[in-house]
Amino acid sequence: MRTQVAIIGAGPAGLLLGQLLSRAGIDNVILERRSLDYVLSRIRAGVLEQGMVDMLREAGVAGRLDREGQVHDGVNFAFDGTLHRIDLKHLSGGKTVTVYGQTEVTHDLAEARQALGRTTIYEAEDVALHDIDTAAPRVTFRVNGEVQELRCDFIAGCDGYHGVSRRSIPEGALTSFERVYPFGWLGLLVDRPPAAHELVYARHERGFALCSMRSAQRSRYYVQVPLEERVENWSDEAFFDELRRRLPAEVADAVQTGPSLEKSIAPLRSFVAEPMRFGRLFLAGDAAHIVPPTGAKGLNLAASDVRYLFDALREHYNDGSDAGIEAYSARALARIWKAERFSWWMTGLLHRFPERSAFEERMQQAELDYLVSSPAAATAMAENYVGLPY
Amino acid sequence: MRTQVAIIGAGPAGLLLGQLLSRAGIDNVILERRSLDYVLSRIRAGVLEQGMVDMLREAGVAGRLDREGQVHDGVNFAFDGTLHRIDLKHLSGGKTVTVYGQTEVTHDLAEARQALGRTTIYEAEDVALHDIDTAAPRVTFRVNGEVQELRCDFIAGCDGYHGVSRRSIPEGALTSFERVYPFGWLGLLVDRPPAAHELVYARHERGFALCSMRSAQRSRYYVQVPLEERVENWSDEAFFDELRRRLPAEVADAVQTGPSLEKSIAPLRSFVAEPMRFGRLFLAGDAAHIVPPTGAKGLNLAASDVRYLFDALREHYNDGSDAGIEAYSARALARIWKAERFSWWMTGLLHRFPERSAFEERMQQAELDYLVSSPAAATAMAENYVGLPY
Repeated sequence: MRTQVAIIGAGPAGLLLGQLLSRAGIDNVILERRSLDYVLSRIRAGVLEQGMVDMLREAGVAGRLDREGQVHDGVNFAFDGTLHRIDLKHLSGGKTVTVYGQTEVTHDLAEARQALGRTTIYEAEDVALHDIDTAAPRVTFRVNGEVQELRCDFIAGCDGYHGVSRRSIPEGALTSFERVYPFGWLGLLVDRPPAAHELVYARHERGFALCSMRSAQRSRYYVQVPLEERVENWSDEAFFDELRRRLPAEVADAVQTGPSLEKSIAPLRSFVAEPMRFGRLFLAGDAAHIVPPTGAKGLNLAASDVRYLFDALREHYNDGSDAGIEAYSARALARIWKAERFSWWMTGLLHRFPERSAFEERMQQAELDYLVSSPAAATAMAENYVGLPY
Repeated sequence: MRTQVAIIGAGPAGLLLGQLLSRAGIDNVILERRSLDYVLSRIRAGVLEQGMVDMLREAGVAGRLDREGQVHDGVNFAFDGTLHRIDLKHLSGGKTVTVYGQTEVTHDLAEARQALGRTTIYEAEDVALHDIDTAAPRVTFRVNGEVQELRCDFIAGCDGYHGVSRRSIPEGALTSFERVYPFGWLGLLVDRPPAAHELVYARHERGFALCSMRSAQRSRYYVQVPLEERVENWSDEAFFDELRRRLPAEVADAVQTGPSLEKSIAPLRSFVAEPMRFGRLFLAGDAAHIVPPTGAKGLNLAASDVRYLFDALREHYNDGSDAGIEAYSARALARIWKAERFSWWMTGLLHRFPERSAFEERMQQAELDYLVSSPAAATAMAENYVGLPY
């Protein structure tokens, strides 16, 4: 089998890249280790930057997003019992974010790909990359017990942090940067209308809490828990009790409880691997970098990588220029480091850190006070939250 | 001896308070442990916020400041070999900072006090505060071997971090917050024109450096050194060599060397004691809080404390209201914590921290990149640097 671009991973990054390539007349095949059902069952992020929404429109997959996505003009910070709203749209010169679940994005992209008749090979086992530093890279994999080979011009590694792509780059060619935070997020999904129309990021002495949502009828709540905490220790009732304790009364009173559709603990990590290209292999999304979820940058960063990568491949095939390919890693990383900074800052701003001194806790408090009292500080927050320009 | 307000310390905070009180017809006496010559020989800060300049004018002591002070519309950040200017005046809506040495401020204030014929007792030994939680506080001290007593309505503790005032408050009535940084500033004063017209804050892998000045002819330079470093190990030549290594070429080439007038190492510390009032004793300036020198907030915070304290005392004596006195600590601290945050942030932004991980160093780099690329981030920096409103 032969294609122009082999894409590893059928998550939103791989599917979005495939969609854009297909519409530009560039042949591509996607290999995915899991089944379609598994991919679509993953509960992930749900806040899309303006730039990602624009890309989904450009890719022709924004029909349902434009109908069902909830445009948010603002976001809230809660601390000391008070709610403070940041007017994202006003402060960012008209930009907004859109609440639309990653699961829905993936669903729409998978459906569009099927409609185009492009190949996606699900449940591809033992995926291995070969000759990535030559002009003729190959990918081998096994389907139904049979080993197959996919020859290609380029490989796009969109297979996440645990995927094979980054691990295929020789030791020594990559430099990694990492911060593991000493806590996790216990998240609960419930089919009840959200407690507030816009997201509420709460700092409380008992720990961080977040009121988010996936739709007008489906809420997603989080509370900070110690890293060693186990989800089995948390009944739905205990979760909602703890959540409410960390929220201002006006928000706590509006939380509607119900049976959890999903409940899990996610660790928080900052991670970047440099560079994002090795020969004919490009890394994109979580394969190259992870942000803590505070600030909702993970999915959006995957989209911005795809933006740069798609432009580079289109230039290669349509314009005969490799300038974009040569620039890909540096261009993507410039934006990634800014988003890493923002996610790290916002995580530090809102969580309780066991190792922090009393002085450092006061610095956190002063930073929150400053953020909600200074239009300049709020503008800096807003421009990052809606997404820095590509 | 009796007065209305006993002021402990004849540094800029105590002298400025005395000057404002005297002009408002409120009697005051200043006690100072050192001699006038000693006080005037101390080399300290030299960047005045707009608000402090305005107060010195209000106090009638700005004649020489207005003639000789250098108004700076901007400040520079240097990193990766490049100079980036922040246009303070433009970004802050017209505010500036004024370069005028603390020594000169103190000199002008001491001269004005002498002209008014107000009492300043220098070389007052064994100063002790009594009955500060009663309506009739007293200060005892020894001059020329003779014990004297000063009765008063209020005591203003303007005697710095090591002074007697804060230590006179009973254990348990104060809460302290502190951060000691793992490095110091080696500073050198030289009678040569400054390397740049405006201050240059430099981040370099060898450590922080600062090009500052006291006048058009007198430069003040600093380099970050380990805490255990000794000034005896640094010849003037070695200092200038190290300074230049940490600066972009265009600045390094403009550094004019010469024999040092003064050379010393200062530690960096963040410190706040709360509350700033105990009975009839008010703390102001370094007696209650210390900032690291990055951002030049120390002297300016002393001035803003004096602003609140003078207004409170004037209200008490002239309007018969104690509202300002009751509010003093909370009002002063609200501004102090914001300045503590700024000084802590700017220190973190520019210094090399031995304990930082590679990821954290990238966060520092990303923060600098963001600061000089985002007008919103630069505006937030500028509004803090010129001074938040009182």
